[in-house]
Amino acid sequence: MAKSKFEYVRQFEKDDSCLPNCWIVVRIDGRGFHKFSDDHKFEKPNDEGALLLMNKCAECVMNQFKDIVIAYGVSDEYSFVFRKGTTQFSRRESKLMSNLVSLFSSSYVFYWKDYIKQTTLLYPPAFDARVVLYPSNNNLKDYLSWRQADCHINNLYNTCFWKLVLEGHCSNTEAEERLKGTVSSDKNELLFSQFGINYNTLDEFYRKGTILIWKKVDEEVLKVCRSKDDVEEQERVVIRSRRRVTHLHTDLIGDGFWLQNTEILEC
Amino acid sequence: MAKSKFEYVRQFEKDDSCLPNCWIVVRIDGRGFHKFSDDHKFEKPNDEGALLLMNKCAECVMNQFKDIVIAYGVSDEYSFVFRKGTTQFSRRESKLMSNLVSLFSSSYVFYWKDYIKQTTLLYPPAFDARVVLYPSNNNLKDYLSWRQADCHINNLYNTCFWKLVLEGHCSNTEAEERLKGTVSSDKNELLFSQFGINYNTLDEFYRKGTILIWKKVDEEVLKVCRSKDDVEEQERVVIRSRRRVTHLHTDLIGDGFWLQNTEILEC
Amino acid sequence: MAKSKFEYVRQFEKDDSCLPNCWIVVRIDGRGFHKFSDDHKFEKPNDEGALLLMNKCAECVMNQFKDIVIAYGVSDEYSFVFRKGTTQFSRRESKLMSNLVSLFSSSYVFYWKDYIKQTTLLYPPAFDARVVLYPSNNNLKDYLSWRQADCHINNLYNTCFWKLVLEGHCSNTEAEERLKGTVSSDKNELLFSQFGINYNTLDEFYRKGTILIWKKVDEEVLKVCRSKDDVEEQERVVIRSRRRVTHLHTDLIGDGFWLQNTEILEC
Amino acid sequence: MAKSKFEYVRQFEKDDSCLPNCWIVVRIDGRGFHKFSDDHKFEKPNDEGALLLMNKCAECVMNQFKDIVIAYGVSDEYSFVFRKGTTQFSRRESKLMSNLVSLFSSSYVFYWKDYIKQTTLLYPPAFDARVVLYPSNNNLKDYLSWRQADCHINNLYNTCFWKLVLEGHCSNTEAEERLKGTVSSDKNELLFSQFGINYNTLDEFYRKGTILIWKKVDEEVLKVCRSKDDVEEQERVVIRSRRRVTHLHTDLIGDGFWLQNTEILEC
Repeated sequence: MAKSKFEYVRQFEKDDSCLPNCWIVVRIDGRGFHKFSDDHKFEKPNDEGALLLMNKCAECVMNQFKDIVIAYGVSDEYSFVFRKGTTQFSRRESKLMSNLVSLFSSSYVFYWKDYIKQTTLLYPPAFDARVVLYPSNNNLKDYLSWRQADCHINNLYNTCFWKLVLEGHCSNTEAEERLKGTVSSDKNELLFSQFGINYNTLDEFYRKGTILIWKKVDEEVLKVCRSKDDVEEQERVVIRSRRRVTHLHTDLIGDGFWLQNTEILEC
Repeated sequence: MAKSKFEYVRQFEKDDSCLPNCWIVVRIDGRGFHKFSDDHKFEKPNDEGALLLMNKCAECVMNQFKDIVIAYGVSDEYSFVFRKGTTQFSRRESKLMSNLVSLFSSSYVFYWKDYIKQTTLLYPPAFDARVVLYPSNNNLKDYLSWRQADCHINNLYNTCFWKLVLEGHCSNTEAEERLKGTVSSDKNELLFSQFGINYNTLDEFYRKGTILIWKKVDEEVLKVCRSKDDVEEQERVVIRSRRRVTHLHTDLIGDGFWLQNTEILEC
Repeated sequence: MAKSKFEYVRQFEKDDSCLPNCWIVVRIDGRGFHKFSDDHKFEKPNDEGALLLMNKCAECVMNQFKDIVIAYGVSDEYSFVFRKGTTQFSRRESKLMSNLVSLFSSSYVFYWKDYIKQTTLLYPPAFDARVVLYPSNNNLKDYLSWRQADCHINNLYNTCFWKLVLEGHCSNTEAEERLKGTVSSDKNELLFSQFGINYNTLDEFYRKGTILIWKKVDEEVLKVCRSKDDVEEQERVVIRSRRRVTHLHTDLIGDGFWLQNTEILEC
Repeated sequence: MAKSKFEYVRQFEKDDSCLPNCWIVVRIDGRGFHKFSDDHKFEKPNDEGALLLMNKCAECVMNQFKDIVIAYGVSDEYSFVFRKGTTQFSRRESKLMSNLVSLFSSSYVFYWKDYIKQTTLLYPPAFDARVVLYPSNNNLKDYLSWRQADCHINNLYNTCFWKLVLEGHCSNTEAEERLKGTVSSDKNELLFSQFGINYNTLDEFYRKGTILIWKKVDEEVLKVCRSKDDVEEQERVVIRSRRRVTHLHTDLIGDGFWLQNTEILEC
């Protein structure tokens, strides 16, 4: 088609392809989700439906971008890791970032009603995104460990905070005051002595966040076959091996996870 | 709160703030919208509801980001222009880009049912985004002119193509063949001689795309007043001047638009 | 020629071309020049030869890179400004930066003996360089004004400091103490009352730094001509207009300079 | 010191620190060295003095920047590799690049007369520089292999070319024609059959380029000691272990080099 004399403005676009042979992490983070979860009456400290909705959106993203080898979600954030050698979008940073956060956001609204029963969605939410490159496997593992350590720190704090507020007759300010300066062991002790809760026995879904990885699973599929004499059609159940997104709620800071899932880093 | 030993991975995040004193353009573009519009039976060459939905999403974006001084939309793309001096998100490119495309995408799903009557949304759509900087006012005007010239070129082509297919008994391939190598005047002539259409009288909504800018409008608001002796409460209608997003479908390539809307470039 | 299997490593090189339509400033700065000027016994507060050598190097740079429209030097630093539209090295940042600083550095050693009489060069000096983009003419003028304001601030301070040390019988520490917290007027007063010096009458070469710009000058050139009958050869002096690098030591912060040299910003 | 109102222009400088945990390669390359070597009558295909001068400059660079773990030079180019974890100049790309190329260039002029006997330096030379990041050890080894493979390809070609021109009575064009389309084995055969030269026995200095690495060497140093009764001073020779830049001309493409010099990649 004809080109206009304004075409020159394309030269102002810059090349933003990511350095080769690095893990590409796209982290998505809810914008103003403190207010958003209040407005939508999310349960404290964790709303199961809201977390399942986040996981659903992340699964949608992975199903469209097969080069994502692992994703990790906690609270209103999700990290997606593209394999080192991906050529998705020619590794262009803005393409990778924008497509992911866009699909995640539209999925969030699309699947809302399947997961959030208590309220209708009042307004469209927004997430921000950033791209970070990690050169080595250890850097990548440390990144994911950083997020899971943050999950632990925040969830322990929030569990205490909301116990104090919802059952301990504290105001928000009093609960904050009570927790100021405490370390992990103090918080564990508080939960146990005051509320009879052993934190380590709480559901890993909340304590560990969600890890999404690809796993081969055997699936039954119906296959239409013909008899040898080609006269009859028959339906038969056959077993097919498929790559499926699997949800885990387990520790990824220690070596165990990586020893059991070596294919993630080998991709 | 406590910091983990993994915290060091934050150092891998890079500073991506935009060069000061440049216009920041964020362009959003539908991903795979050819298929998406087929799947959702959008009318050809233009689906009014789908375009109004795009405009609604863009308006949502502008209402949240007041430093956007002009936006321009055509087909499945939208460009947003932040004023040169904006400090929104400290001018960080990924923040600007991701927040805009995310809000746009979630709005698209959220408002779908208000604009698209014929079909329910089958799956969540995705948009990509990019940031481009323009140092001078002329560069910015040329950028917007480039998009509007593209709108013209594409819409003229599509109008011919779909007339040939829908009324001219051509197959898609025949229509393509018929239009190959034609220039604008050929296409105008084809529309006029074969279908009795004067292209320049078609609705500017389709021929020019949509320009969103801020305009001061006087709005009536109810105000509760007290009488002088402070005894009675009265409601009175008062006129307030408000900045509102205004939709225009007009030429912005010539000087006229800019002479009439000088505040855009002076911001 | 044959390509090796290692060729892929070129993909790790990134595109670093500068945003179009911006002034490209390359600033060069001596590394460890405090020690360097001590080692080479540069006169304090200013060594004429050392400054003339800097200017000579800058002139060499301009003569090789004709798209530099203005350069400004003070002390051990020099700023070079490429015109907005330059396509030198396809506007690649590292090419522009490295070629300039390299040529400047090699010129410094090459021309040393012509300017520095008192000492031989003891070791090769180094300069660092950076590239900064300025979108508007005002930004560029402010950049240059910033450097000249710095020149003023530093030179006034250094003039006082070395007067106190060399003629006022102060130790370095005492001179520092004496000047701590003083503003410009204090320093002017000190010079006048204690040393009988009116700072504003000192040589502009030191107070203003050096501006290099292109000026058309008429030059006499010898031209060999033939007589009409093509029998004799004659040499004649003809006047040719040439662009030459001109050295100025004048104020560029006020409007005067720019009004007298409008061609700089119009290039 | 006082700040001027122009200070804001510093905000236009961008942060250009290199991604952590990557090898930082700075490659320096002579600008217009074809002409430069003609002008200075460098011997063809290789001028020993010119190559030794390059090596001297590289050694100067390494002695100032101890975080360079290996350098590789061939013809008019040199690559310097900073260790992955270097914090030199806070890993700022332009600082690393400009300081290296500047020091290299000034050294080239400074040491010229010690290495180039046949001609005085006619004008200051220039080198360009670029920074490339390599995430993994294999990437880095492949980078260096790429340069050494290039050295081989070019040197074999040049050896043939100049034999044909200087001894084979070919014009430059004829020599080019003769070599067009030949592969390595053809060139080896040509050298052997026409000039009686076994290429693989030529000096490795030319065939392999120069590798600079740090090696611990024992050095004798004079130490002043006092006798036990503190009466006499004595000078004694003691052996000290020092890190020194070592020059090698050997293959680095195979594993042997890396197995013998494991400390390079472990730094």
